[in-house]
Amino acid sequence: MAALPAACFKKVKYMSSNVEIATNAEVPNVTSQLVDWIVDIKGSDIPTEVRKEGLRTFVNWIGCAVGGAHHETVDRALAAVMPFSGTATSTVLGRPERLDALHAALLNGITSHVLDYDDTHLKTIIHPAGPVASALLALAELRPMSGKDFLTALIVGIEVECRIGNSVYPNHYDRGWHITGTAGVFGAAAATGKAIGLSKQQMRWAFGLAATQASGLREMFGTMTKSFHPGRAAQNGLMSALLAEANFDSSERGIEAPRGFANVTSTKQDYSEILDDLGTRWESALNSYKPFACGIVIHPTIDGCQQIRAEIGDRVSAIKSIHLTTHPLVLELTGKKTPRTGLEGKFSVYHSAAAALLKGDGAPTAFTDEMVNLPEITGLRDRITATADPECHEASVTIDVTFEDGSRLSKHVERAIGSKDVPLTNEQIDAKFITQSALVIGEEATRELLAAAWNLEALSSVADIAGISVGQSQTKAKATGS
Amino acid sequence: MAALPAACFKKVKYMSSNVEIATNAEVPNVTSQLVDWIVDIKGSDIPTEVRKEGLRTFVNWIGCAVGGAHHETVDRALAAVMPFSGTATSTVLGRPERLDALHAALLNGITSHVLDYDDTHLKTIIHPAGPVASALLALAELRPMSGKDFLTALIVGIEVECRIGNSVYPNHYDRGWHITGTAGVFGAAAATGKAIGLSKQQMRWAFGLAATQASGLREMFGTMTKSFHPGRAAQNGLMSALLAEANFDSSERGIEAPRGFANVTSTKQDYSEILDDLGTRWESALNSYKPFACGIVIHPTIDGCQQIRAEIGDRVSAIKSIHLTTHPLVLELTGKKTPRTGLEGKFSVYHSAAAALLKGDGAPTAFTDEMVNLPEITGLRDRITATADPECHEASVTIDVTFEDGSRLSKHVERAIGSKDVPLTNEQIDAKFITQSALVIGEEATRELLAAAWNLEALSSVADIAGISVGQSQTKAKATGS
Repeated sequence: MAALPAACFKKVKYMSSNVEIATNAEVPNVTSQLVDWIVDIKGSDIPTEVRKEGLRTFVNWIGCAVGGAHHETVDRALAAVMPFSGTATSTVLGRPERLDALHAALLNGITSHVLDYDDTHLKTIIHPAGPVASALLALAELRPMSGKDFLTALIVGIEVECRIGNSVYPNHYDRGWHITGTAGVFGAAAATGKAIGLSKQQMRWAFGLAATQASGLREMFGTMTKSFHPGRAAQNGLMSALLAEANFDSSERGIEAPRGFANVTSTKQDYSEILDDLGTRWESALNSYKPFACGIVIHPTIDGCQQIRAEIGDRVSAIKSIHLTTHPLVLELTGKKTPRTGLEGKFSVYHSAAAALLKGDGAPTAFTDEMVNLPEITGLRDRITATADPECHEASVTIDVTFEDGSRLSKHVERAIGSKDVPLTNEQIDAKFITQSALVIGEEATRELLAAAWNLEALSSVADIAGISVGQSQTKAKATGS
Repeated sequence: MAALPAACFKKVKYMSSNVEIATNAEVPNVTSQLVDWIVDIKGSDIPTEVRKEGLRTFVNWIGCAVGGAHHETVDRALAAVMPFSGTATSTVLGRPERLDALHAALLNGITSHVLDYDDTHLKTIIHPAGPVASALLALAELRPMSGKDFLTALIVGIEVECRIGNSVYPNHYDRGWHITGTAGVFGAAAATGKAIGLSKQQMRWAFGLAATQASGLREMFGTMTKSFHPGRAAQNGLMSALLAEANFDSSERGIEAPRGFANVTSTKQDYSEILDDLGTRWESALNSYKPFACGIVIHPTIDGCQQIRAEIGDRVSAIKSIHLTTHPLVLELTGKKTPRTGLEGKFSVYHSAAAALLKGDGAPTAFTDEMVNLPEITGLRDRITATADPECHEASVTIDVTFEDGSRLSKHVERAIGSKDVPLTNEQIDAKFITQSALVIGEEATRELLAAAWNLEALSSVADIAGISVGQSQTKAKATGS
């Protein structure tokens, strides 16, 4: 499809309130065209390389969901919602509790994001799998589907989510929306709607229902409510598909209408990002997997500090001070000087650098309450300073170390491990999976689960994977008020 | 409390994206101060006149919820969610189906709004009771509460909802947000959080959770998804309170933070509307009750047309043409020239005028698919024209009638029946209640329900009212997929 003419995006002054809204007539039928593609595409239309990346996304997501299963955030969410669960068809991955599919979608969205260790579409900072895979697997336990169909729906959902994200990013994100929540609900609706075979009309309604539920504020970062966003996006997206299936109608122009999602939540609406090259340009294939359990903007710093640690060995204890030069966004998002909890530690480039230098750690273990308050860590942390430099790329960092003896060392990281330039290998994804999952369900169940996850496309029923994920957790589960 | 200094609302350029965001330091602790008031206030602190208006709000809401109970919108929503309901503690008013409290909150929010016949806070066009009462009554069936405590929580929730609405209206609404959904979730969280005795910290978290779920687009008007908004606001607000009760934490500055609700969803943030005169100025006492089952902006036209019909009698059939002069908003919201369904008819000032002139009708019966397509109605409808005049007040209209013989008649309505200037009497609320409810649960149950509703403050358990609302509907209920 050719790029849309600029006239499609012309703005007019609307009403008396200084709100600029695109006029009706000039905008293409974005929702309708996107829905045609979603409903028509077959698994065999998706290139092998794209399906391979989709599988990596799925494996990484399962590991993160199991890895986060016993976080306090999850315990509290479960305590609140268990009394309201319907027929317990679906698994909370890595835990003994089962819930109805809508609530399981919520919980798996929380568990997979709570350690900030999941996946990232780097163009938009969307964490794609949480909203989409959480909705789809919970649904697959209620309405059986094959691994092939599951993977097709997962890839389609993520494609939709990232394209809608592209169309409004960065203005939408800068305004304050947590784009994983707001774009995620469309991805979850698309994937689950595809899986249950919605008609095109129903799918358009599902998009209207998703648009009107798109929410999630960046203000919540650093609290339990951050991981609530992908969970709620999964649940709301599935709800959208189920309502549409029951012919609950809605706008058929949820994305592009004058008072639809894109206009109301962003000052940028580039619909060519949604409609151009559908089926040939694959945003879902650009997914990346976090090597470190925190916001993506800290990753270059952790990578660089781990490299420095490997180079200087014992001299780590002889560091006098450290200075970071980063893009302004890094300090805006992760500039907490004195974090007090593990969650706050994820939003402190200072803590992250100290933990990487002193412990070589960037895994969830680097972001526990204990680690954040360790005197050794806080001592070094307080000797780290940082400068925001707009000339520095968001994905780069320069780390200047001064030792007690006055000597200096400088390390520049152009692109961190885990980025698209330095992607995790399948073996690194395995190692990340095993490290997380073994702590929760034991090593044996972890290896069985990992093998089943890579074997997704051969499964006749994906629900099997959810069952395996529970492993030995029955005996490890904490009381959750249920 | 004195008005906040203008400096509190100073704006600064933020980041590189042209998004203006208020800075942190200059903004008062809006959420915290509001929460202090919510948690501390006692029922006896609320003036008698305010409690009286709260009771009228409750009675009107019950009638609307029962009245809308068998709408197709409700049937379809129930078909979708019934398979996911948890323990059926709570009533769908006017229907035999029972659901868990969260889903019952959703359904009662839909039923009470689906006929566009509910209540209106005219300053903001919020329909206050739907989100708040729906959440609170569903909760009261799970956790018993007295009528007095219920009324206190209801009034507090509506007060919060309307004040938050005031703080961002009209910019927020003009941008495209359905304010009943976006402000409603705060009201539902406040009311249910008050009822279950959240601590101040928990209530601040509940407000963070509400803020991050605030959603609902005006694009959905004219579809089933419009009434989904107050329903989802009720459900999400209750969910926010329940999560906070389980110590699921969140931002404690959900309303006013730089990337909190007010800044992200509006270009206006007047926090004095939220904080000034708490406990002395009562927005909840400004509630009004719709005499007609459609958008409030059409009410002056229907009122005027009914008056003309009363004055001219048989000469209605001799009308050649009609011209309306209205505020621009009336045509923007309700300018559909040729509606084809009952729902679309609610967004057509032309249909509404024709039905009022020919049938004297503005009740739900005026907005059925059949009525909208009646040749007699469409014939007159197509001879009605309208002009938008910015000089005309939103709540006024001028109706110019030309008869076949060339004679003319002009009617100006300054304020319509149902507005705060011409409020419905208790007897008119009774009549509206009976007309709606008797069709659904029969006259006997209706009279019992009406009496119980007015008797709210004497009830030891409000759940009784929900039980009475089911009446004879068991035998009238349609299949809903359950």
